[in-house]
Amino acid sequence: MTIRPTIADVAREAGVSKGLVSFALNDRPGVAAETRDRILSVANALGWRPSVRARSLSTDRSFALGLVIARDPEIISSDPFFPAFIAGIEGALAPAGQALVVSMVSNEEAEVASYRQLAAHDRVDGVILTDLRRNDPRIALLEGLRLKAVTLGHPDVESSFPAVAVDDGPGIHSAVEHLAALGHRRIAHVAGPSSMLHGGRRSQSFIDALRALGLASDLVVETDFSAAGGAKTTAALLDLDEPPTAIVFANDLMAIAGLGVAQRRGLRVPDDLSITGFDGSDIGAYLYPSLTTVTTPVLEWGRASAELLLRSVIGDDDVHDIELPAAQLLVRMSTAPPRTIR
Amino acid sequence: MTIRPTIADVAREAGVSKGLVSFALNDRPGVAAETRDRILSVANALGWRPSVRARSLSTDRSFALGLVIARDPEIISSDPFFPAFIAGIEGALAPAGQALVVSMVSNEEAEVASYRQLAAHDRVDGVILTDLRRNDPRIALLEGLRLKAVTLGHPDVESSFPAVAVDDGPGIHSAVEHLAALGHRRIAHVAGPSSMLHGGRRSQSFIDALRALGLASDLVVETDFSAAGGAKTTAALLDLDEPPTAIVFANDLMAIAGLGVAQRRGLRVPDDLSITGFDGSDIGAYLYPSLTTVTTPVLEWGRASAELLLRSVIGDDDVHDIELPAAQLLVRMSTAPPRTIR
Repeated sequence: MTIRPTIADVAREAGVSKGLVSFALNDRPGVAAETRDRILSVANALGWRPSVRARSLSTDRSFALGLVIARDPEIISSDPFFPAFIAGIEGALAPAGQALVVSMVSNEEAEVASYRQLAAHDRVDGVILTDLRRNDPRIALLEGLRLKAVTLGHPDVESSFPAVAVDDGPGIHSAVEHLAALGHRRIAHVAGPSSMLHGGRRSQSFIDALRALGLASDLVVETDFSAAGGAKTTAALLDLDEPPTAIVFANDLMAIAGLGVAQRRGLRVPDDLSITGFDGSDIGAYLYPSLTTVTTPVLEWGRASAELLLRSVIGDDDVHDIELPAAQLLVRMSTAPPRTIR
Repeated sequence: MTIRPTIADVAREAGVSKGLVSFALNDRPGVAAETRDRILSVANALGWRPSVRARSLSTDRSFALGLVIARDPEIISSDPFFPAFIAGIEGALAPAGQALVVSMVSNEEAEVASYRQLAAHDRVDGVILTDLRRNDPRIALLEGLRLKAVTLGHPDVESSFPAVAVDDGPGIHSAVEHLAALGHRRIAHVAGPSSMLHGGRRSQSFIDALRALGLASDLVVETDFSAAGGAKTTAALLDLDEPPTAIVFANDLMAIAGLGVAQRRGLRVPDDLSITGFDGSDIGAYLYPSLTTVTTPVLEWGRASAELLLRSVIGDDDVHDIELPAAQLLVRMSTAPPRTIR
C-alpha cells in the first residue's frame, strides 16, 4: 500500500548486491564493518524501514496482540473499564512497536469465531483474556489454537496461561465495613452475573464481609452489570417490606442507575439510602451526590497484562502470575449514616 | 504460532503436487474440475485455511483497518462514542474477515508516530479519521503515507478521502427551538474546542439557531469536552449576574457534570435550570432527571465508515461521500419551562 524504499533501492544507491544489503540490515555475520556502515547509512538516508509483514513471515510472528471484547454495544459504551484498559495496553505496545487488534462481539458464538480467525490468520501472537467465566471454555479453546495468552485474574479451571490479577475482595470488604461503621445493618448487594468470575467473587466478598460483622447477608440480587439491570434490581430492593438502608453495587454503571431510581422515588441519597459503586469511574466524581466507589488500577492492569504477554510470546523464562495492588474504597458523598439512627 | 495444515500436507493427502493444490485453492484456471473438487475436499477435511499473512504478501494488502484515537485516557473512559463506534466498525469487518487495529494515544506527536508506524509496517490498508480538526494536518500526512482513509465528517481542507458525515446542526437547532418554545430567553452553550470541527460546528449551529429566533447568543463558552471542563464552565455561567435559565452542552459528559454542579448548588433541574446534552448516551436515560439530549446514529456511522473504506481499499468505483441521517433531539426530563414564567 505504501511506497517506500526497497532493499533493491538501497542496494542500487550503495552500489552493492541486494543479498549484501539484506545481510547487513538483518545484522548477519559476513559483511565487512565498513560496508555495513555504508549500507546502513544509505538505508537510513532513504528512509528504509523493515516491514513488519515481511519480518512476520521470516520470524513466524505477527508483532501484534489481540483483545476480543464480548459485550453488548449498549453496555460497552457506558462501561469505563475497556477504554482505560486499552489505553494501558497501548502504553506497553507502542514503545515495543507492537499493534493491538481489537474485536468486539455481541455473543459467545461470534467470540469463538473471532479467536479462531485471529489464530488461523496469524493476526496476533497472543491474546489478553478478560471477563473470565466459570469453567471458562476459552482457556481450552486458546490452548487448542496454540495461541499465547494471559488471563485477567485466576481462572477456576486448569490453565497454562499466566494471570494478572487484582484482588476485588479488600475493596468490597472496605465498602461493607465503611457502611457498617456508619451504622447500617441492612445492606444489600446488586451483583454481576455469577457466571462471570469477578461477578461471583464480588458477591462472595460481600457475603464474607457481612458474616464477619455478624450481619445478615440475605439481600444479594444477581443481575447483568447493565444500567437497566441495576435500575430494575434497585427498584425491587426498595419495594421490599424492609428495604435496605444501603446498597453495594458490583459496578459504577449499575450504581449510577440505582441512584437515579432512588432519587426518582423522592429518596435522598445518602440520607435515605447509601450507595457504593465499583470501578472508580471518572464520571462518578461529578454526579450529585458524588459516588462512593471501589477503585482498581485499570491502566496499570492493561500495561502489566500486555507486558507479560509480550514476554510470554518471545519465550521469556520470567513469565509468572502477577498480583497488582488490590481494589480500594474511595469514599465520596453517596454514603452516610442511616436516617433511623441519626 | 499456530500449527495448521500446510499446502504440502494437502498435496500429500490428495496425492498431487503442491503447485496443483495452490492453483486449486486459489481458484486459478487449468485444474480439472474433478481434481479441484478432490483437493478442496481434502483441504477442507484437514482444516486448511489460507493465512492472511501469506495472502498479504502476495496481494500487498493487510486485510485490516486502523483507528487511531487521540484522547486523554480519563476522557475516553467516560466517552460513549468510541465503544459504540468500534462496535459499528466490527459489524462491517467481521463478516468480511477483516481485523481492526486500534491505537490509543494521548498527544498529537504520538498520534503522528502511530500513523507512520501503521503505514511503514503495512499494518492496515486504510484508516478511519475521527475528530477532524481545523486545517487538519493529518489529511496531508495520510496522503503522504499513501494510506487509504475515510474521514468522519467533511474536512475544511482539500482532501482526497471520501467522508461519512452526520449533520449535527438539526439536532442543536431542535434543542434550541425546544428550549425557546418552553419560554427560555437566556440560553447558554458549553462548547467543545473550536479547534475540533464538530466542536466549532455545534457552536455555530447554536448561534445560528438563537439568531433565527431573535435571541442573544452571547453566552457561548468553549471548553474541552471533559467532565472537569463541563463542571467548571457551568459554575462560571451560574455565577453570572444574569445566569442562563438553560444550558445546551456540546456532549453528554459535560452535561452530566453540569447537572451535578447545579444540583450541588441546590438548584433543581429542570425547574431552576434546563439542561441538554449531545450523544444520546445510554446512561443519560438513568440519571435523575434523565437527560434531554441529541442523538446521532453512532453504530451506523461506524459500520458505514468501515464499509466505505473497504470499498476504497479494493479500488471500487462506487466510492463517494455518504450523508447519514442528521442528529435528532431526544426530549427527556432535564428540560422544562423556566421558573420565571410559570
